[in-house]
Amino acid sequence: MRMYDIIMKKRNGGKLTSEEIEFFVGGYTNGEIPDYQVSALMMAVYFQGMDQEETLALTMAMAHSGDMLDLSPIGGVKVDKHSTGGVGDKTSLALAPMAAACGVRIAKMSGRGLGHTGGTIDKLESFAGFSTGISREHFIRQVNDIGISIMGQTADLAPADKKLYALRDVTATVDNMSLIASSIMSKKLAAGADAIVLDVKTGSGAFMKTLEDSLALAREMVRIGNGAGRRTIAVVSDMDQPLGRAVGNALEVREAIDTLQGQGPEDFVELCMTLGSRMLIAGGKAQDEGQARDMLQEVISSGAALDKLAAFVQAQGGDPAAIYDPKLLPQASHVEPILACTEGYIREIRCDEIGVCSLLLGGGRETKDSEIDLSVGLVLTAKVGDYVKCGQPLAYMHYNDPARAAAAKERFYQAYTMDSKPTQAPPLIHRILEQA
Amino acid sequence: MRMYDIIMKKRNGGKLTSEEIEFFVGGYTNGEIPDYQVSALMMAVYFQGMDQEETLALTMAMAHSGDMLDLSPIGGVKVDKHSTGGVGDKTSLALAPMAAACGVRIAKMSGRGLGHTGGTIDKLESFAGFSTGISREHFIRQVNDIGISIMGQTADLAPADKKLYALRDVTATVDNMSLIASSIMSKKLAAGADAIVLDVKTGSGAFMKTLEDSLALAREMVRIGNGAGRRTIAVVSDMDQPLGRAVGNALEVREAIDTLQGQGPEDFVELCMTLGSRMLIAGGKAQDEGQARDMLQEVISSGAALDKLAAFVQAQGGDPAAIYDPKLLPQASHVEPILACTEGYIREIRCDEIGVCSLLLGGGRETKDSEIDLSVGLVLTAKVGDYVKCGQPLAYMHYNDPARAAAAKERFYQAYTMDSKPTQAPPLIHRILEQA
Repeated sequence: MRMYDIIMKKRNGGKLTSEEIEFFVGGYTNGEIPDYQVSALMMAVYFQGMDQEETLALTMAMAHSGDMLDLSPIGGVKVDKHSTGGVGDKTSLALAPMAAACGVRIAKMSGRGLGHTGGTIDKLESFAGFSTGISREHFIRQVNDIGISIMGQTADLAPADKKLYALRDVTATVDNMSLIASSIMSKKLAAGADAIVLDVKTGSGAFMKTLEDSLALAREMVRIGNGAGRRTIAVVSDMDQPLGRAVGNALEVREAIDTLQGQGPEDFVELCMTLGSRMLIAGGKAQDEGQARDMLQEVISSGAALDKLAAFVQAQGGDPAAIYDPKLLPQASHVEPILACTEGYIREIRCDEIGVCSLLLGGGRETKDSEIDLSVGLVLTAKVGDYVKCGQPLAYMHYNDPARAAAAKERFYQAYTMDSKPTQAPPLIHRILEQA
Repeated sequence: MRMYDIIMKKRNGGKLTSEEIEFFVGGYTNGEIPDYQVSALMMAVYFQGMDQEETLALTMAMAHSGDMLDLSPIGGVKVDKHSTGGVGDKTSLALAPMAAACGVRIAKMSGRGLGHTGGTIDKLESFAGFSTGISREHFIRQVNDIGISIMGQTADLAPADKKLYALRDVTATVDNMSLIASSIMSKKLAAGADAIVLDVKTGSGAFMKTLEDSLALAREMVRIGNGAGRRTIAVVSDMDQPLGRAVGNALEVREAIDTLQGQGPEDFVELCMTLGSRMLIAGGKAQDEGQARDMLQEVISSGAALDKLAAFVQAQGGDPAAIYDPKLLPQASHVEPILACTEGYIREIRCDEIGVCSLLLGGGRETKDSEIDLSVGLVLTAKVGDYVKCGQPLAYMHYNDPARAAAAKERFYQAYTMDSKPTQAPPLIHRILEQA
């Protein structure tokens, strides 16, 4: 088998066999096939596409390119949840303890943030001492003990995907549905869960800007997951404005804590309920959505979910005191309201602009090695559809460096479009896919 | 300017500016832009194409990526001739001395052969001592002295093309008309001639198999040449059967000598006349085709063309004795007729199969570093349209190694298709393009 022939076949619109896909993924991972042949193939895939069988074969080959995590020492159905990422997306922080408190086994791998979307691991590090750099033995034992653990993604989880993504990123071959779906799903399959609940974001702050693309990605991932024998459900949810109100690492942790205390923002609570009920059903803990929602509500009311978060933080070396006294979380030295300049209904809050604000304040990574300031960010006080008067705060900005704050504030206003006529907030849940 | 943006622009169907093309060609040549980005761009070009301006800009950028040969120390119009290559194509060997004998300045760079098509330099080395590894000063002085010189292509002639072609060759991005045309023309432009006569082959033994593709390539090259200010004419000629009768290095030299003595095969003589008359007109030596053909005929009849070949061979260190006594050329130890097994009209002689025969006999290079046997090859005794009886020779095989001969002979028969009904030979000259 020759890589040249594989490129030529795909270039000419042919369908690659599983053997051909395994050949190129294996050869690329071990360095026998050079970057320049793989980038040519990726560009050919961009133009000719891959069908469902090819996409599944690519996902499986990448999943098997490194370690496949074996979660069998953990009893019960292990459920993973994955978000395609967005601004203010702190869902795992609240949802994982909620689901765990309902008895679902949460054995999850997470990543750090890059660019204007924050990563779950960064947020969790708001708890002093907390670490995701734990051993596999620790990880498995902890899930068996308290029902929840989150570890950092190891280098040997789907290394082919890591290498291929880095190449696609510099050769303008990222935006192909099959390649995006297989990249995400290869890591999820290698991470070992039995069931996967996907939160596919759509809108200005999402990787997929249109509902059509988001639905296509959701379908592709559900098809791959089910094709690989893992029960997979996708929720397509809105990212046309930031999720909840807090944007910034420690601020989002605080919002998650508020939510576990029954005081979360309406949209964020609803997303946790929607995703959580699918996790409970997939995990065999609830029969239907009604029962699942009641259970999730109960662990909030009883404080069981908050206690689960505390147990989880403590088990991974963190200080849980901040959970009951959020002032112990990293605090910015300044908090300043950003006031509305015009009166009217908020028609749009552009997520990418809000994300850049947080980045400018120091809350995100501009490069892989940037240090981030966990304390900074924004807390929005009004969202799309709300009516604001001149001089009324749109948000509170938490910052440490006044120069950065000035730059962020200027950018902040660019995120907003006002309207004299009432506008409706976009729907939060666009679609739920149980089958492709 | 970023290479990423250039790839993205072309991928999305945009038109690259001259600056963008110069940026990527320059960056690739000096090693700042990596192979993997360039191969992705080439694949995007394969799918999205390049328009005339982009193609000209690419050609100019590649031509200027190394030395531009300055032929101004040579007086008069310098005319170059280039063939896209085929089986039995010994045209330069006869045509260059013919045109030089008519007063056209021939200052030509040639290459070696690879695969089943031979190179002019290999063929010329049939003259003991002949070398194309001469200095530029020698090259220019010789053209001024005797009107003709052929030198080997130097490493610094269009290095961007060399690097890019090697990359395209392993990434399935060779067959795009703009890329093929710019590759050929960048070298021709850098080689410095004022006028260029292109022999674009079409048919089973050509790079372009269909007349449509050959015409498109011819047009593209004429457009580039004229766009770059060089008078460029293309002749689209047949390569659906081998040209002339001899296939193999020394055998082709002998056929060229026969031709300069007025005893060449009809098709080969006609091709030399067609191309030669364009060279004489472009070089300002003849007013029209009639006058040009008369002049070319005259230098054959008078022996002036043969003497020009002798002077040329001698000036580059070769022994010209073989020109007047062809038995002094490399001779194979065995010559064996290959007999027809069936009676009928020859409908087809597949060039690629005949080329492979010559390769199997040892007459071609399987890799860049292969040694070649100059003496071996085939001399066809019948061509398409001829009637042959069983037991009548189709060709004479010249060989040194009986094992190789057996393999070649088996392959030889696969080249032939016989017919009980008369068939016509394909036309030799399909089209002459003076303008795109």
